[in-house]
Amino acid sequence: MSAFNMADQLSYIDNPVFSQFAFYGSILIGKTVLMSPLTALFRMKNETFSNPEDLKLGAPGIKVNFDDQTVERVRRCHQNDLENILPFAVIGVLYVLSDPLPHVARRLFQTFTAARLIHTVAYLAPLPQPIRFLAFGVGAVVNMIMVGRVIICGTL
Amino acid sequence: MSAFNMADQLSYIDNPVFSQFAFYGSILIGKTVLMSPLTALFRMKNETFSNPEDLKLGAPGIKVNFDDQTVERVRRCHQNDLENILPFAVIGVLYVLSDPLPHVARRLFQTFTAARLIHTVAYLAPLPQPIRFLAFGVGAVVNMIMVGRVIICGTL
Amino acid sequence: MSAFNMADQLSYIDNPVFSQFAFYGSILIGKTVLMSPLTALFRMKNETFSNPEDLKLGAPGIKVNFDDQTVERVRRCHQNDLENILPFAVIGVLYVLSDPLPHVARRLFQTFTAARLIHTVAYLAPLPQPIRFLAFGVGAVVNMIMVGRVIICGTL
Repeated sequence: MSAFNMADQLSYIDNPVFSQFAFYGSILIGKTVLMSPLTALFRMKNETFSNPEDLKLGAPGIKVNFDDQTVERVRRCHQNDLENILPFAVIGVLYVLSDPLPHVARRLFQTFTAARLIHTVAYLAPLPQPIRFLAFGVGAVVNMIMVGRVIICGTL
Repeated sequence: MSAFNMADQLSYIDNPVFSQFAFYGSILIGKTVLMSPLTALFRMKNETFSNPEDLKLGAPGIKVNFDDQTVERVRRCHQNDLENILPFAVIGVLYVLSDPLPHVARRLFQTFTAARLIHTVAYLAPLPQPIRFLAFGVGAVVNMIMVGRVIICGTL
Repeated sequence: MSAFNMADQLSYIDNPVFSQFAFYGSILIGKTVLMSPLTALFRMKNETFSNPEDLKLGAPGIKVNFDDQTVERVRRCHQNDLENILPFAVIGVLYVLSDPLPHVARRLFQTFTAARLIHTVAYLAPLPQPIRFLAFGVGAVVNMIMVGRVIICGTL
């Protein structure tokens, strides 16, 4: 059967590469989503708000503030996640569908996940450079390997 | 038949959960994409541009400006969409493929969509807090519920 | 057969529209991912760092700096990619699965890809306006066309 209509029962569970991707991808998306409440937490704690209407969430008399060091650090870490983890999630789906070798795919997903978790710790601690720099670089290389494979598969 | 090759006819229309996701997801992506022209509109109206080469789009003699209150408010709203709606779109696909109960999935998609539309109105109006704060929180909880299910499905 | 479980062999290669999308989408994701190392390159060259712990990557005595013109320009270009290319990648998958006419889909993907590549060149060169403005607009229109089709397909 070559025609395909997604039907009642639709699942990635029987596909080992997709299952691996779903597992690691959802850990990373969960980590990224949690950066927002973390920012909010430090905004509350440090009474650092960006909008006039938010000021009533803090003490009377505070003003909008865009310069709190901790809040801005969490925000830069979050932004770096958006720049790297969201592309990973998107190219990852295409990579999975390019039918890669399962053990290569698993190693790439694990490497990327470890690199991004180290990146977050290195940014928030902060750890001395070049730890964060290297963690970022490893993640970017994994993304580019997957991009390269999908482009090559598309032109063959 | 266990092997699967996407073929001539490929559609989500017969899968009710994927159809629901496609409907709500595309509304939210459309809303996010429209934030850019909205920013551009206020940049034109308030003659607030970030790049020297953009200045000829406004009156003679204006300078680059990063501090217009309205433009920065639209931009913060847009950024919050990137931080929440893009992860929703990504984890949503994995969640759909984890074969969830259709009525639970539909309720999650509807809740997230309502929360994000309320968030946008609350940000742009602006409405008094904690409306925006709660709308953001509801969206983040829906994302984490989907993340949790995909991780659990992946480890079983 | 209406039930579907992704299995050992999973690939988009037999679906022409998905193959086209994978090809153009991965070019654009690759371009977006490369903006981060480009930012890092100019941070090194211009010794412009955002975090105190990064300062040892530059000359002794430098301070954190958020105002380098070149770095901020690359960052704005990168941000615009996140705001447009990531939504394209997400809505593109849904659009592909809405079973569009192949030649229409290919034209949309090609138009979007050309518009975003022109946008990047126009931002980084920089080229005189309204080139970047038009490139951005064409990309946004393609995104909205795909959003519109998926919403309409979902409500029929």
